[in-house]
Amino acid sequence: MTKPLYVQKFGGSSVADTECLRRVADRVALNVREGRNIVVVVSAMGKTTDRLIAMAREVHADHSDREYDQLLSTGEQITISLLAMALHHAGIDAVSMTGPQAGIQTDGVHTKAKITAINPERVRECLDLNKVVIVAGFQGLNPMQDVATLGRGGSDLTAVALAAALKADRCQIFTDVDGVYTADPRVVSKAQKLKEVACDEMLELASMGAKVLQSRSVEFAKKYGVELEVLTSFEVKPGTLVKEAAQMEDVLVRGVAADKNQAKVTLRGVEDTPGVAARLFTTVADADINVDVIVQNISSEGRTDISFTVPKDDMGKVKALLQKIEGVNFNEDLYDDNIAKVSLVGVGMRSHTGVASKVFSTLADMKVNIQMISTSEIRVSVVIEAGLADEATRALHTAFGLDQA
Amino acid sequence: MTKPLYVQKFGGSSVADTECLRRVADRVALNVREGRNIVVVVSAMGKTTDRLIAMAREVHADHSDREYDQLLSTGEQITISLLAMALHHAGIDAVSMTGPQAGIQTDGVHTKAKITAINPERVRECLDLNKVVIVAGFQGLNPMQDVATLGRGGSDLTAVALAAALKADRCQIFTDVDGVYTADPRVVSKAQKLKEVACDEMLELASMGAKVLQSRSVEFAKKYGVELEVLTSFEVKPGTLVKEAAQMEDVLVRGVAADKNQAKVTLRGVEDTPGVAARLFTTVADADINVDVIVQNISSEGRTDISFTVPKDDMGKVKALLQKIEGVNFNEDLYDDNIAKVSLVGVGMRSHTGVASKVFSTLADMKVNIQMISTSEIRVSVVIEAGLADEATRALHTAFGLDQA
Repeated sequence: MTKPLYVQKFGGSSVADTECLRRVADRVALNVREGRNIVVVVSAMGKTTDRLIAMAREVHADHSDREYDQLLSTGEQITISLLAMALHHAGIDAVSMTGPQAGIQTDGVHTKAKITAINPERVRECLDLNKVVIVAGFQGLNPMQDVATLGRGGSDLTAVALAAALKADRCQIFTDVDGVYTADPRVVSKAQKLKEVACDEMLELASMGAKVLQSRSVEFAKKYGVELEVLTSFEVKPGTLVKEAAQMEDVLVRGVAADKNQAKVTLRGVEDTPGVAARLFTTVADADINVDVIVQNISSEGRTDISFTVPKDDMGKVKALLQKIEGVNFNEDLYDDNIAKVSLVGVGMRSHTGVASKVFSTLADMKVNIQMISTSEIRVSVVIEAGLADEATRALHTAFGLDQA
Repeated sequence: MTKPLYVQKFGGSSVADTECLRRVADRVALNVREGRNIVVVVSAMGKTTDRLIAMAREVHADHSDREYDQLLSTGEQITISLLAMALHHAGIDAVSMTGPQAGIQTDGVHTKAKITAINPERVRECLDLNKVVIVAGFQGLNPMQDVATLGRGGSDLTAVALAAALKADRCQIFTDVDGVYTADPRVVSKAQKLKEVACDEMLELASMGAKVLQSRSVEFAKKYGVELEVLTSFEVKPGTLVKEAAQMEDVLVRGVAADKNQAKVTLRGVEDTPGVAARLFTTVADADINVDVIVQNISSEGRTDISFTVPKDDMGKVKALLQKIEGVNFNEDLYDDNIAKVSLVGVGMRSHTGVASKVFSTLADMKVNIQMISTSEIRVSVVIEAGLADEATRALHTAFGLDQA
């Protein structure tokens, strides 16, 4: 095959109804007529999954995961067959495949299965016949020969994994935003759409609340060298390419992201003996609560203060856990959900210093009090008062020269 | 396994919504607690199939059969998973299987596939573990590894075929009527529910408009010696057993059925040369029109009259065909859709004479004019004026002693 191969993924909002399906079909047809081989990955249509879940709850609140997967996988199967019909209507040869038919194999964990292997032989055969292959996202066949679903963001993962297995030239994720921006355009009017972003940057941005792509998909793309593109399904224009950093020009700061979905927990006067922090955070992790920033001050008179952030929704759960935690003594526990985490991300930070100090001085000029600091190789994050987050984001966006295209 | 094995099929109206599913689950649970192994076969819930078909039409009026099957098969998959959950809720161990998972193999004809083989190994393994196995009716896996649907009455066929493959003790078809009657109870108030009926009788009754079971399922049951039972899903009481004639007492007349859905076509003055009838009925058959009764009078002066009945809905199609038919010359074509076919069915007729003459004299006493006569080994049918059909049915029901239980 000399034709370039694109894997294109359309999410639930792009395939909300039959009208939308016709539009997606036209979009795919455009690509076929430009001489590309296309594999399409789709999610369930609009509210289908919600409706199926509601029925399951009506029947049995505590339903089995296997049957839940058997039920939910029909959502994508409906989309693929209807999209195949829509493509036929647009004059394009196309064939639909469920996850199992497309050779997607998973482990045995229902509702959040991992893809273990892809045998793309059948997909490949159809592509060789110049057919568009439409694959049900979010699902595969497990070792028990049952259909298993991949959990959140599963359709993105299906697309990226198929692109890797087929050695596709590009994996395009169509969504309701037209790309990745230097900041949230609703907050920063001068935010610029990025032509490209490094995988590592995308990972930091995703974990920062910029929910364009699930981290799992980006990690997978990075691992297998899949070139990802995020673009809108509502207009025909280029999006943002997510590439390996090696292929890109390093920039100091690629973007500024604010996460207002965190809450801060502070334990005052924690008895500072070995193993205390381990006990504390093991307890929190065992409750499936994702701890983000952790700060521990120096100890004085055998006692220290520990602060950490958790998703806002989990604050109550943490409070309950701390009431009955054993082996961790402290004087006082404080909770604050009026915070935001503002982060600067850029692969250039690896080889440059001075980013953190510029962040601090920019915020100092604004009289913004920094409550916590956390950094990685390519990120600087500060926790500040929630009400100041937008203003701080705009100031940092300007300070790091992101206002210009 | 020493436990008796029952295959139980519940149609669309028995599984119309989640409330119905709970009721079916309770019914199945009852059987499990009575010490039976159960395989349940279900159709799509209520209006699901209609909704899917409507969506397909919105997308592409002339949709591909393969994609149509891919789409429609989700209907049964939704039912099986929800019913499994409902059984779990009722405290019964159960597992759902799609047609392909249950080892149902079909030929390659989409939308009206035939079952070619059943590999019931996985079903058997689950039964051995005392699980209820819930199988999606109406579908199987074709040689291309695609899901194929079986066409009308397909779920009944799935149930009977599984019963045969598993050597089940009985195959119960749950429906909205509580059994097979000596006549339509809405017409004949003294109609009696039959405890049993012979397969051959059931076949004649089915083809006669008594649509309790599709002929294909009865034929299959007969061929593989499956004991069928027709019963209602709304009450717990015995239905009607459909058995091989050899196991039953022969009765002269088992029931009276009226088919008001036929129309009569008469060709007057047909040129009576060899091959004319063949040309006529080949033309009609090629248009997929089912000809039922055919009567040809003796020829006079090289011309004859031919009458035949077809489904009422096809009368217009036949008229159009006859306008342009080649090699069949006739003077006049007449059409009458104001007719009914009344039939008496009973395996005892094989060894008794006099049934036909008793029919004729009963109708003569009522001054009913007989327009056409057709008989088989176990059936006598007459075509009469539609308005007299109910009265004739009641009279024959009485004349042949069917009014008493």
